[in-house]
Amino acid sequence: MALKVGVIGTGMIGQDHIRRLTKVLSGVDVVGVADIERARAEAAAPEGATVFDTPQDLIASDTVEAIVICSWGPAHEEQLLGCIAAGKPVFCEKPLVTSEAAALKVMEAEVAYGHRLVQVGFMRRFDADYRRLKAVIDGGTLGAPLMYKSIHRNASVPAGLYTSDMPLNDTLVHDADVSRWLLDDEVVGVEVRVPRRSSRGGELRDPHIVLLHCGSGAIVTVEISVNISYGYDIRGEVACEQGVAALPNRPATVVSDRFGIRQEIPEDWRERFIEAYDQEFREWIVAAGQGTATGPSTWDGYAATLVADAALRAVESGAFEQIAMIAKPALYETA
Amino acid sequence: MALKVGVIGTGMIGQDHIRRLTKVLSGVDVVGVADIERARAEAAAPEGATVFDTPQDLIASDTVEAIVICSWGPAHEEQLLGCIAAGKPVFCEKPLVTSEAAALKVMEAEVAYGHRLVQVGFMRRFDADYRRLKAVIDGGTLGAPLMYKSIHRNASVPAGLYTSDMPLNDTLVHDADVSRWLLDDEVVGVEVRVPRRSSRGGELRDPHIVLLHCGSGAIVTVEISVNISYGYDIRGEVACEQGVAALPNRPATVVSDRFGIRQEIPEDWRERFIEAYDQEFREWIVAAGQGTATGPSTWDGYAATLVADAALRAVESGAFEQIAMIAKPALYETA
Amino acid sequence: MALKVGVIGTGMIGQDHIRRLTKVLSGVDVVGVADIERARAEAAAPEGATVFDTPQDLIASDTVEAIVICSWGPAHEEQLLGCIAAGKPVFCEKPLVTSEAAALKVMEAEVAYGHRLVQVGFMRRFDADYRRLKAVIDGGTLGAPLMYKSIHRNASVPAGLYTSDMPLNDTLVHDADVSRWLLDDEVVGVEVRVPRRSSRGGELRDPHIVLLHCGSGAIVTVEISVNISYGYDIRGEVACEQGVAALPNRPATVVSDRFGIRQEIPEDWRERFIEAYDQEFREWIVAAGQGTATGPSTWDGYAATLVADAALRAVESGAFEQIAMIAKPALYETA
Amino acid sequence: MALKVGVIGTGMIGQDHIRRLTKVLSGVDVVGVADIERARAEAAAPEGATVFDTPQDLIASDTVEAIVICSWGPAHEEQLLGCIAAGKPVFCEKPLVTSEAAALKVMEAEVAYGHRLVQVGFMRRFDADYRRLKAVIDGGTLGAPLMYKSIHRNASVPAGLYTSDMPLNDTLVHDADVSRWLLDDEVVGVEVRVPRRSSRGGELRDPHIVLLHCGSGAIVTVEISVNISYGYDIRGEVACEQGVAALPNRPATVVSDRFGIRQEIPEDWRERFIEAYDQEFREWIVAAGQGTATGPSTWDGYAATLVADAALRAVESGAFEQIAMIAKPALYETA
Repeated sequence: MALKVGVIGTGMIGQDHIRRLTKVLSGVDVVGVADIERARAEAAAPEGATVFDTPQDLIASDTVEAIVICSWGPAHEEQLLGCIAAGKPVFCEKPLVTSEAAALKVMEAEVAYGHRLVQVGFMRRFDADYRRLKAVIDGGTLGAPLMYKSIHRNASVPAGLYTSDMPLNDTLVHDADVSRWLLDDEVVGVEVRVPRRSSRGGELRDPHIVLLHCGSGAIVTVEISVNISYGYDIRGEVACEQGVAALPNRPATVVSDRFGIRQEIPEDWRERFIEAYDQEFREWIVAAGQGTATGPSTWDGYAATLVADAALRAVESGAFEQIAMIAKPALYETA
Repeated sequence: MALKVGVIGTGMIGQDHIRRLTKVLSGVDVVGVADIERARAEAAAPEGATVFDTPQDLIASDTVEAIVICSWGPAHEEQLLGCIAAGKPVFCEKPLVTSEAAALKVMEAEVAYGHRLVQVGFMRRFDADYRRLKAVIDGGTLGAPLMYKSIHRNASVPAGLYTSDMPLNDTLVHDADVSRWLLDDEVVGVEVRVPRRSSRGGELRDPHIVLLHCGSGAIVTVEISVNISYGYDIRGEVACEQGVAALPNRPATVVSDRFGIRQEIPEDWRERFIEAYDQEFREWIVAAGQGTATGPSTWDGYAATLVADAALRAVESGAFEQIAMIAKPALYETA
Repeated sequence: MALKVGVIGTGMIGQDHIRRLTKVLSGVDVVGVADIERARAEAAAPEGATVFDTPQDLIASDTVEAIVICSWGPAHEEQLLGCIAAGKPVFCEKPLVTSEAAALKVMEAEVAYGHRLVQVGFMRRFDADYRRLKAVIDGGTLGAPLMYKSIHRNASVPAGLYTSDMPLNDTLVHDADVSRWLLDDEVVGVEVRVPRRSSRGGELRDPHIVLLHCGSGAIVTVEISVNISYGYDIRGEVACEQGVAALPNRPATVVSDRFGIRQEIPEDWRERFIEAYDQEFREWIVAAGQGTATGPSTWDGYAATLVADAALRAVESGAFEQIAMIAKPALYETA
Repeated sequence: MALKVGVIGTGMIGQDHIRRLTKVLSGVDVVGVADIERARAEAAAPEGATVFDTPQDLIASDTVEAIVICSWGPAHEEQLLGCIAAGKPVFCEKPLVTSEAAALKVMEAEVAYGHRLVQVGFMRRFDADYRRLKAVIDGGTLGAPLMYKSIHRNASVPAGLYTSDMPLNDTLVHDADVSRWLLDDEVVGVEVRVPRRSSRGGELRDPHIVLLHCGSGAIVTVEISVNISYGYDIRGEVACEQGVAALPNRPATVVSDRFGIRQEIPEDWRERFIEAYDQEFREWIVAAGQGTATGPSTWDGYAATLVADAALRAVESGAFEQIAMIAKPALYETA
């Protein structure tokens, strides 16, 4: 039986997920949509799907078994709490919520409910390259991981619209989440260093170097450039006690021509992570069909919120900004 | 509406395709199965699927809209003719048929029917690496392709069961098909050279070097080793007038340890081409749902049969063995 | 006419340079040696070379035109001052000297002399891979360099003999020198972070992450592991405004076997930099033959001393340790 | 004591070797030169060197201990015979001679003399990449070599001056020599196939595929393109019973920019093999100083002549052209 899904938020990412759920993946039907602009919801609704007046109507509907939240961040808290209250599995795009307080509230509700309902959209955990990298680390032949370098390069950002906090608020969370997951560790402190500014971005603060200090003592160095012109280039290398493991080049054709021997670099995140998005939903559909959730959890969303907040403080203070997490609820222990 | 599919032949490959059609892909249901061993068909049948007494019963059934043939090669001719007579789309695993005469008969029937119904299982055409390679060649910036090197290495073959004709009969057909497709060309002659024999295979004739002479004059050099121990390694490089394009390394983690800086090599074809098989069926499902077929055609199966036959003659004669194809029916012109 | 060279210090590195000067390179003769252990000097002396009682005798000798200093660090100051007083070109192994005061004293003497006489043994500047990397950066097509990652991995260090200050005192100086050279910049501040300790080194503080803040604002991240078991692995990557340039894999045979597709990693610095050492001396011989010096200068040795001192302070303080250099004497402006 | 060398032929390659012998290498002096154009010899002569009227005068001179032959091919036979008659070590650029008869005559003279005097200029054997490749094969862990692929690509050839026989006469000899050396085998037969012609070369026959059949049964596939525009690209891969070993990419900077992630390809053979030429002479100087020769021998020059002759016959006949060598004189057994 196909899982009946309602999608809240039908902007760019919502439309892409509707396409994915209807054209690419099996075992799922999009039966309802909702958006603050009703016309946009109507345009995005697949044939036969209901257009709901409000997110809460959609969540409450008997025909909707599971929810995908693609609305803007500030709306997530209420929508997540609604899903949990209804006992319905929910996939929530980043950011989980926009404040520590909201994260704690959602977590409290889920813990009170008694089992996981929320999966957060950290799609890198579903990327085949990252999964192989984690398998190598977990295999243990290289010894304990001591350092991780995460490199995040964007070709460009929308001039004017993109502000200096975004590399820390929107981009760093991916590096932080995948670091926590790869190293099986928590971030306990954050430092930010701002190198010589790229002349390509005008007043934009870019690039950034972020140090994530982990509970084990491992240190993650994140290098973020959002305006580097040549492509979308995501790199990662774990240095362990007895060896090193790194993400490979993307599998592009090896061309030898007057520019050398070369492989193309992806243009943007859609090209780079398209299969990870598909896989993310494949696994969500299975778990949601069983009334629960796997993958990145509310706890992971909470951690990401704390890292982003600490990074924003650190860029101002120039100092080490400590992160204090609550005790991890048992619900998230084996996630 | 999901495409209702019947699967003929429920051996290893048939079972894998049933898994794929029921668990991985969307828009398709397996509604019937048939096998010469009824017990095997019953074991393989998904819940709710009918087990038919004979392939012809399955083909004739009103509940079956499209057929997947995974029986052994000698049975294909009759089953394909049955599908065409019934006007039903059919996916046929390699080999299409086992003789030139049979290929011509199937082609004649399909041409008489008036449009394509048959897709042959040359899955490499659906592999992302090969598709990118073809896109580079077709892009034209490197000039006309003059030579192609196709390297086909198997870790091992079943001792005793695997005979010296199999590299030419079962393996070469993949290299030949992908060569014809990449170069958009036909093979007009075949030569086979047998190098120093590998001591790992006893009496087995291994490796082989095969030269495929194409209509344009382009020459394909195929190197086949079926017992090379280290892994399943598929390589391809097109040398054009102004540059060269090659398949990349597989996207395995880059590990630096006491064995060097290294990437794992796939163990076998399942690991290497698992996504190509999925994609092959994705596209088949779409075309079959429209009552037709795309991808590798009866013409391509016919060409493969001719190349394998010529290669077997060439290994005996040591000479250039010419291939004479019939005029290409218009049906296959734009395939 | 061959340059007549005297070598002070005939330990391991001195012996290796004597071999290089007598067996590998042209245009040079080793005419004298000196060592605090006379027997060692006698054993190392090439046929026909004089064994001097003291370094100062060697420096003063009319038969010695240029000097190579391979004694231990604390002896360098006096020997360098002797060479400058004698107006003789001198190649000095790292460290130039062991204190800021000594560096200033040597620099003052050289400036007073009026032109360069001293070349310091930072051999990486003569490595073909580093030179190509610098040429790409200097070419300017990638825009201004904003960040540099320098990775320094040693397979192992002598247990017991190797102390926790050595990665900063002996190893970091190479990364710092090559960073200054690649970026054409000075280090103005140093931070050190100590990640989770490798269990392979017992009490040894290892690895280290060092941040070098440059005058332009560029930040260099140095990752030093001295006990990583798998090999001697030196990496470098410059992130610029519009692209990135990195040292390549070492040119080892690409082997495909059961360990994957792989290239060997050098065992130690001798294997990695053997050609750089040769080239370093080739260029020194030419300059010394003209009574002067090129390549890494007393200024560079002074800068390295300041960086190492600051790093040692930073590992204690956990803070940003500023570096204050004197105004750069004109003598070193165009070096 | 420096080896006193006379150079015959002061054209482009002769001038380059004079530069190498006087400016790069140690233990050698160029004391004499000769050329059919005396003015050219005078211009090329290093300070203090004698300009001889004839090659034979140079060979006969008491001041000349060893000879480097860089004259054109047809003159080599007489000059080599002169060197052997004088008992003087000689380095001879390719081709050794221009006919089988001449090769046999030179070999007969050297055998009669009693030990090796001749080294032929197959510089690839001195290239570090090829040496590492040979070491891997000889190490034996991959099992016996069964196939070798040698790829030889030139960016361009002088229009008009370059004829269709040159790829077989001038280029193939390098691939043949390095194949014989890598596989420790002899070529017993040659086939040539001519693919679709590159439109870049007008009437020029280009590219070529050459099959070299070796005594062990191993087959070498040589792909020669002399006009491929993008660079000078030399590749080699040995397929063994249990694994594969290949030449690596050249060690160029890894640049990530809008053309992808890429490494430059050498422009021409000078750039690619400059260090191999130096090493070739380093080893020659040592052997010649002892009155003998090592490295590629008269036997190897003889073999190359036979391969080129057979290839020229094969391109005409389209058939397998057998090579019959004389029994190998004991003199060359342990070369």
